[in-house]
Amino acid sequence: MLSKRNPQLNKHGELVHLLSIEGLPRPVIHQILDTAGTFLSVNDREVKKVPLLRGKSVFNLFFENSTRTRTTFEIAAKRLSADVINLDIARSSTAKGETLLDTVANLSAMHADMFVVRHSESGAPHLIAQHCAPHVHVVNAGDGRHAHPTQGLLDMYTIRHFKKDFTQLTVAIVGDIVHSRVARSDIHALSILGVPEIRAVGPKTLVPGDLREMGVKVCHDMAEGIRDADVIIMLRLQNERMSGAMLPSAGEFFKHFGLTPEKLALAKPDAIVMHPGPINRGVEIASDVADGKQSVILPQVTFGIAVRMAVMSILAGNEAS
Amino acid sequence: MLSKRNPQLNKHGELVHLLSIEGLPRPVIHQILDTAGTFLSVNDREVKKVPLLRGKSVFNLFFENSTRTRTTFEIAAKRLSADVINLDIARSSTAKGETLLDTVANLSAMHADMFVVRHSESGAPHLIAQHCAPHVHVVNAGDGRHAHPTQGLLDMYTIRHFKKDFTQLTVAIVGDIVHSRVARSDIHALSILGVPEIRAVGPKTLVPGDLREMGVKVCHDMAEGIRDADVIIMLRLQNERMSGAMLPSAGEFFKHFGLTPEKLALAKPDAIVMHPGPINRGVEIASDVADGKQSVILPQVTFGIAVRMAVMSILAGNEAS
Amino acid sequence: MLSKRNPQLNKHGELVHLLSIEGLPRPVIHQILDTAGTFLSVNDREVKKVPLLRGKSVFNLFFENSTRTRTTFEIAAKRLSADVINLDIARSSTAKGETLLDTVANLSAMHADMFVVRHSESGAPHLIAQHCAPHVHVVNAGDGRHAHPTQGLLDMYTIRHFKKDFTQLTVAIVGDIVHSRVARSDIHALSILGVPEIRAVGPKTLVPGDLREMGVKVCHDMAEGIRDADVIIMLRLQNERMSGAMLPSAGEFFKHFGLTPEKLALAKPDAIVMHPGPINRGVEIASDVADGKQSVILPQVTFGIAVRMAVMSILAGNEAS
Repeated sequence: MLSKRNPQLNKHGELVHLLSIEGLPRPVIHQILDTAGTFLSVNDREVKKVPLLRGKSVFNLFFENSTRTRTTFEIAAKRLSADVINLDIARSSTAKGETLLDTVANLSAMHADMFVVRHSESGAPHLIAQHCAPHVHVVNAGDGRHAHPTQGLLDMYTIRHFKKDFTQLTVAIVGDIVHSRVARSDIHALSILGVPEIRAVGPKTLVPGDLREMGVKVCHDMAEGIRDADVIIMLRLQNERMSGAMLPSAGEFFKHFGLTPEKLALAKPDAIVMHPGPINRGVEIASDVADGKQSVILPQVTFGIAVRMAVMSILAGNEAS
Repeated sequence: MLSKRNPQLNKHGELVHLLSIEGLPRPVIHQILDTAGTFLSVNDREVKKVPLLRGKSVFNLFFENSTRTRTTFEIAAKRLSADVINLDIARSSTAKGETLLDTVANLSAMHADMFVVRHSESGAPHLIAQHCAPHVHVVNAGDGRHAHPTQGLLDMYTIRHFKKDFTQLTVAIVGDIVHSRVARSDIHALSILGVPEIRAVGPKTLVPGDLREMGVKVCHDMAEGIRDADVIIMLRLQNERMSGAMLPSAGEFFKHFGLTPEKLALAKPDAIVMHPGPINRGVEIASDVADGKQSVILPQVTFGIAVRMAVMSILAGNEAS
Repeated sequence: MLSKRNPQLNKHGELVHLLSIEGLPRPVIHQILDTAGTFLSVNDREVKKVPLLRGKSVFNLFFENSTRTRTTFEIAAKRLSADVINLDIARSSTAKGETLLDTVANLSAMHADMFVVRHSESGAPHLIAQHCAPHVHVVNAGDGRHAHPTQGLLDMYTIRHFKKDFTQLTVAIVGDIVHSRVARSDIHALSILGVPEIRAVGPKTLVPGDLREMGVKVCHDMAEGIRDADVIIMLRLQNERMSGAMLPSAGEFFKHFGLTPEKLALAKPDAIVMHPGPINRGVEIASDVADGKQSVILPQVTFGIAVRMAVMSILAGNEAS
């Protein structure tokens, strides 16, 4: 489905769509993180409103419902002064039998400048990017189990903010990795940024062995997995996506892989704890840890707005060809 | 659940949240009404657009659906030039098992500046105000049977507009008082503003006797209740909240407590008729009265936009501590 | 239900509501098309953002769901810098038993400047226009089988753009005419603009004979209907509105009335193909035609934004009386 040239980049190597982190050059990632930094004021508590997208129309095309993610993109676009159109696609034209590509062609003809696409099918944002009008930029806001690149980028912003240098870090990603597009995007980003040790930690049913081919260390033992880690990324246990057969119970999972203060003590003393949210307290993470001083879960959310503003403003500044 | 200090005021006595009218100092109420007046032009027909909240993000958190109330807040916020984010909470994170306070913490981290909260549970806005980040202001847009303070304030604006002086008035509140957060907010406001005679009028099943402790005169006879009143506030018969046992029928209710031209003639000749809407014609109010020259129901709606603008702009100007 | 004077025009003959194309003076239609042209840049690929409706509130009142049409009005209003309020009417006050006119009176009192109304009942926008406050303008966004005037106007813009002169044209409207408010609006517009030959083409069950009274040539044979046409307007087969009895099957319909390259060859070589969307590929139109070089379906969408901007800006500039 993908053309040979990276479909995210124009002939000058500039970002024109954000579809996945895989294949992004390291300087492009750092450009995004640097730009995000300019949207945060010195104390990181305020995000400034800027006119960079004034007169542009950003369409949120959520074929799969996600109020939280849609909201972060809506806020980011409005802080860039864009006009934002939220489309409840499930109730819309697709329900009348229109094809995905016809829907997209129509919206392009309405002079959309950017599509933010969430879809349950892996690859849907790529398909849209390949077929939409050349003036339209596409941002993948999560497709199937494939990728969630803005989450990956905000995770990198968070790590860089607290740890400065990627090239000395041990990062443990813990939990339901097999279903997680966040894990996949994080692993690509960490690899590109030169993190020497990336660990995937969880039960065999939730951590696929083929991750080793990506240079990831696979651990089925929590203590081993988080020992001396600098960064621990806990994943949401996707109850709603799992068949009962894969796991004995949420309680059982918590006993073995839930992050408690005791387990956290095995990591470096200044390790940070991350989570893409929404958290399941007492399932993958203990409340003491989620609310503790090593948790950077809420800063992640704040950085996420700035990172999405950065992605949108960079895309809007680049020509398709 | 409430701390001892009024959680709506900072240490300088300035309004930082609007949770209920109970406990508001009289000058704060007059400040809101005066500010609302500045948003209405001389002929009261136009509400000006002003940049007071430019760059601020107002989140409408409606845990209970109310298109009408949400719309008034959305209009008010947009006339203040705020960015408005409508969250359909029922479909959102809470459905994924996230706690109310985690949802609110996350939205705070997205740099919300204000939460407008409607919730079926009494006290939910208080809880949110106590736990959200210090830069966030909370407006109660109706919680359970507890309070609906902006409705109370717009009712006071309406009365002041038409009657000038609160200290000589007789105000009758008629109908389903037991289920009405509007009635509760109105009673607190009228008391604070010095109205000498407040009457609660309705059948025994709908008018709780303990209102007498609030200084309210309880009347189970309509003629007695509205005789010589200056202001009549009719309440909506909340069909959807009543069990059949409480009332014989809508027709029976109208016969005894519905406001007809004949009953209205018992009040002062210049009495005004108010209603928070939406009205049930022929149930609590006759069409002749709703559309008659003593009705100020539509001016209430207009004033409501200005009052909500006033509340938001005052809150945004005050520091939490 | 209609008053004798055209309810769309004030005493100076200026447009104050857009309810239907029937009865519009030809100069008013040309004024709308000319104004639309000013919103499209020279290459017709960009629609400029202008401050003509800054500080005005446009309410989308969609009593019947239509994400596509609502979106085009939302974009048009935002490009005019209006504040846009989308009301999900089905979930709103009408569900609480409020009458249509009370809902509208309330929204008027919130200082709506414009109502964009979609309703399943023919005549609902007229009713609203007759009863709303004088400062409010009403745009019909489709009512029952009656009218869809902005679609009619964008179709005229498209024809004028590609064909220049209406007075030499043969226009064929093909398909499900009996259910189509688009067809009705197009026929009125084409008549007013002086098109000498208007043909209604389709099976007897879908093309009412009384169209002849409107000066339309009725054809139940496709070849005859589109022969030497300059413009072919294909209509969507409204599967969701048809009982099974009216048509044998979608395949049968396509065989006789679906527009294929072979049938299109019967029209003039420079004939344009139009469709209001969303298209049913392989039902009323072949993909080769929809995507072919005579298709102007996507330009219609682009022009539709400019035409809706034109309608709104003209209405906002005219006084009710």
